[in-house]
Amino acid sequence: MLKCHSKFMLITLLSMGPSLTGFSQARKGEPIAPIEAPTGYHKAKVELGKKLFFDPRLSKSSAISCNSCHNLMTGGSDNQVSSIGHNWQLGPINSPTVLNAKYNIAQFWDGRAKDLKEQAGGPIANPKEMGFTHELALEVVESIPGYKSSFSKVYGTKAVTIDQVTDAIAAFEETLVTPNSPFDQWLLGDDKALTALELAGYQNFKAKGCVACHNGPAVGGGSFHKMGIVKPYPTKAEGRFAVTKNPADKQVFKVPTLRNIELTYPYFHDGSVWSLEQAVDIMAEHQLGIKLSKEENNSIVAFLKTLTGDQPSFALPQLPPSTISTPTYRKEASLTPTKSKASH
Amino acid sequence: MLKCHSKFMLITLLSMGPSLTGFSQARKGEPIAPIEAPTGYHKAKVELGKKLFFDPRLSKSSAISCNSCHNLMTGGSDNQVSSIGHNWQLGPINSPTVLNAKYNIAQFWDGRAKDLKEQAGGPIANPKEMGFTHELALEVVESIPGYKSSFSKVYGTKAVTIDQVTDAIAAFEETLVTPNSPFDQWLLGDDKALTALELAGYQNFKAKGCVACHNGPAVGGGSFHKMGIVKPYPTKAEGRFAVTKNPADKQVFKVPTLRNIELTYPYFHDGSVWSLEQAVDIMAEHQLGIKLSKEENNSIVAFLKTLTGDQPSFALPQLPPSTISTPTYRKEASLTPTKSKASH
Repeated sequence: MLKCHSKFMLITLLSMGPSLTGFSQARKGEPIAPIEAPTGYHKAKVELGKKLFFDPRLSKSSAISCNSCHNLMTGGSDNQVSSIGHNWQLGPINSPTVLNAKYNIAQFWDGRAKDLKEQAGGPIANPKEMGFTHELALEVVESIPGYKSSFSKVYGTKAVTIDQVTDAIAAFEETLVTPNSPFDQWLLGDDKALTALELAGYQNFKAKGCVACHNGPAVGGGSFHKMGIVKPYPTKAEGRFAVTKNPADKQVFKVPTLRNIELTYPYFHDGSVWSLEQAVDIMAEHQLGIKLSKEENNSIVAFLKTLTGDQPSFALPQLPPSTISTPTYRKEASLTPTKSKASH
Repeated sequence: MLKCHSKFMLITLLSMGPSLTGFSQARKGEPIAPIEAPTGYHKAKVELGKKLFFDPRLSKSSAISCNSCHNLMTGGSDNQVSSIGHNWQLGPINSPTVLNAKYNIAQFWDGRAKDLKEQAGGPIANPKEMGFTHELALEVVESIPGYKSSFSKVYGTKAVTIDQVTDAIAAFEETLVTPNSPFDQWLLGDDKALTALELAGYQNFKAKGCVACHNGPAVGGGSFHKMGIVKPYPTKAEGRFAVTKNPADKQVFKVPTLRNIELTYPYFHDGSVWSLEQAVDIMAEHQLGIKLSKEENNSIVAFLKTLTGDQPSFALPQLPPSTISTPTYRKEASLTPTKSKASH
């Protein structure tokens, strides 16, 4: 601990950063910015969106919620190669994490949704995912008094619209950020937040060129790039070409965030790699055309693990109960021989 | 508000119950006892059990957790006729709520598990539910450092056993009780906790004979009875006969709890009825051989809705991440044309 010899010295120290004074000041000139804790959000809207995010009744089976594939207990992802959807159909691509997704230039690997709100409507109506339709999902929401009153309070309209449903879910997702990672503590001025190995990894991450795509607060998410810039990457996915129909966009994907990367295995749009070490080597080979030494790889992996921040923390939500008029679409052999007892 | 005229009067008032003094004293002679909040539990064990309860990696697909079918956001049940299990197989019977399950005489509708611990092992290894084996589930748990250290701390052994896994899950489930329902407030002496209709419903519940089976703290769960005592109930389920092979146990089931019944639709072992009004009428007809008037039915339903207590409240757990040695058993068409990239 330094000792202050004069008033002037004290003032100097006060401007030096958080390790001495608690005052946060980002390091200048770094290509990665710290994640900021959510502030000033619409509390009632976020609470409504949280319930909808966890509600399996937005799916045809009443068994799949947003959280099924973007599990907030496991880094906002489901840790599957690709997600299991309606009727146990396997999704075509790895589910990206919802954590810090607000920083993405667009949503989905191919960027086909311009923002979180537009994204939220996709899986509900995707026959391979939640297998529902917006109309039927709205019928369900409208039949639940606990939702009706919340929507009315937040949006002030009589009927609930899909626009409101996705707006509320997006508002909740906007709060799903992960501040306070060791790397962010370092960015904010705490020299002791990173080990020498982690810091060397960050230097390598910049020097080798990873940072060209993986930058900004989410360490990615800000641009589209070809998977296999230098060396072709074998994949059947067509990428952003599906959206733009521009041949140059074949196998072009949104650069994924590296925030919480330790938690969001398996990696890449095809979910083919489970090891962070291997993922780093593949990126170096296919995107940069280099081979990392074992030490360089180790240090970069150590750095990447410093990107794990505080996970969203809130009480398990309680979902408003259905009513007798809430539609259900499950069809199965019942233990009851006759249909007479089933009310719907 | 009464006025105290003497010291003697004050002492008399102090012994009168919670409405005046906050002192809780259960009404004497009632066949239903209040639910007590959990106390004195092993905190580290419960926290471990909570994580395991929410962990989909205890299933073969890594997609189904205990919470999938006993959802603590929806009354400890999944509100399905029967649950969706591995490979989208439909379960043979309605999932009972896990809330207040500690009060049950035995677990499962047919009572084939003697307690919560024995129950917890069942779905993991059931090919139609989580589709796993105890051995493989243990391999998964053993591969996760966050679990290894917790088990070691709680049980003090080197290897994790299935006995420990189910013990921890059961310890968590022991805490899943729902105290403080309006009915319990009334039981504890608060005369204003129930309306006249609800109180009339409770009197009818007792007078008509419902309470013969639905009694004790869980308002059920304490005994086995035939579904269709007076009038045969059409069902293909064989009930407790599957356990005892005693012909007298055909279509005999554990009496379900009525706590939180408003949240745990659809009703009965076959999940065939979605309306509480209809369920009450069917019970009266098949179990008691009576027809309730509309007023009697209304009052009993109003009483049943006073059995909804405080739902378990805790922060969404964060699950310890897998490692590269954690086995996965998902087999699916990958976007990657060759297998060379998959590390396992």
